[in-house]
Amino acid sequence: MNISHVEHIGVAVKNLEEAISFWKEKLGIDLYKTEEVAEQKVRIAFFKIGQTKIELLESTTPDGPIAKFIEKNGPGIQHVALAVTDLQGNLDELAGKGVSLIDKSPRKGADGLDIAFVHPKSAGFLLELCEDPKLK
Amino acid sequence: MNISHVEHIGVAVKNLEEAISFWKEKLGIDLYKTEEVAEQKVRIAFFKIGQTKIELLESTTPDGPIAKFIEKNGPGIQHVALAVTDLQGNLDELAGKGVSLIDKSPRKGADGLDIAFVHPKSAGFLLELCEDPKLK
Repeated sequence: MNISHVEHIGVAVKNLEEAISFWKEKLGIDLYKTEEVAEQKVRIAFFKIGQTKIELLESTTPDGPIAKFIEKNGPGIQHVALAVTDLQGNLDELAGKGVSLIDKSPRKGADGLDIAFVHPKSAGFLLELCEDPKLK
Repeated sequence: MNISHVEHIGVAVKNLEEAISFWKEKLGIDLYKTEEVAEQKVRIAFFKIGQTKIELLESTTPDGPIAKFIEKNGPGIQHVALAVTDLQGNLDELAGKGVSLIDKSPRKGADGLDIAFVHPKSAGFLLELCEDPKLK
């Protein structure tokens, strides 16, 4: 494994505008970008703090994964993503060590990254691994 | 506000040895340190990834805050901590902006840091601000 840093922290929010306002107006951090990821049924606002982005996630539909997370747990931190190189190689290594993976191969995630999720039953929470294809 | 990076991510775990094993053996990251914080009724194992520590928290008693978190939510990510300078000044600024604070003044946290929590009703999750007194 070759993990360099915490790439982002995904936070499930009910109201993206209110959450953006907290990070911008109260904490005084500039908005990095916003994005809609149709496949994940989310609108996202990113705030960058050092090496790490705070990824505020609002569901665009009542049946999306973020809406279901909030229904079960309330709003809050949904996942943590670690930046790696050779994502596929890392997934193969983890599978070989008996780690339970949600994604055995990378798929496209927000902010142009290749991503894959490790199952909470192995990691203890929803852990994402991600790789910037521009750095390959 | 003057936030530099994500200092740590606090993860509530049922079994610290099992959680340590995942981070060490599966992800291949060296254990940074372990610590017991009697006041918080937790044993902690730290793993450092770039600027950020993963803080694995196991309750030492059934009535500690981590035990209560797990009882309510199951194991998982409990809080995120941002590193700041002038923690007291930042707390005063946030209070002045109407942000709900759990701690109006810093108290001692793990790894020698001064810490204070922002209330989830303002931040959307349990947000910690922390300052390294050695850098003051």
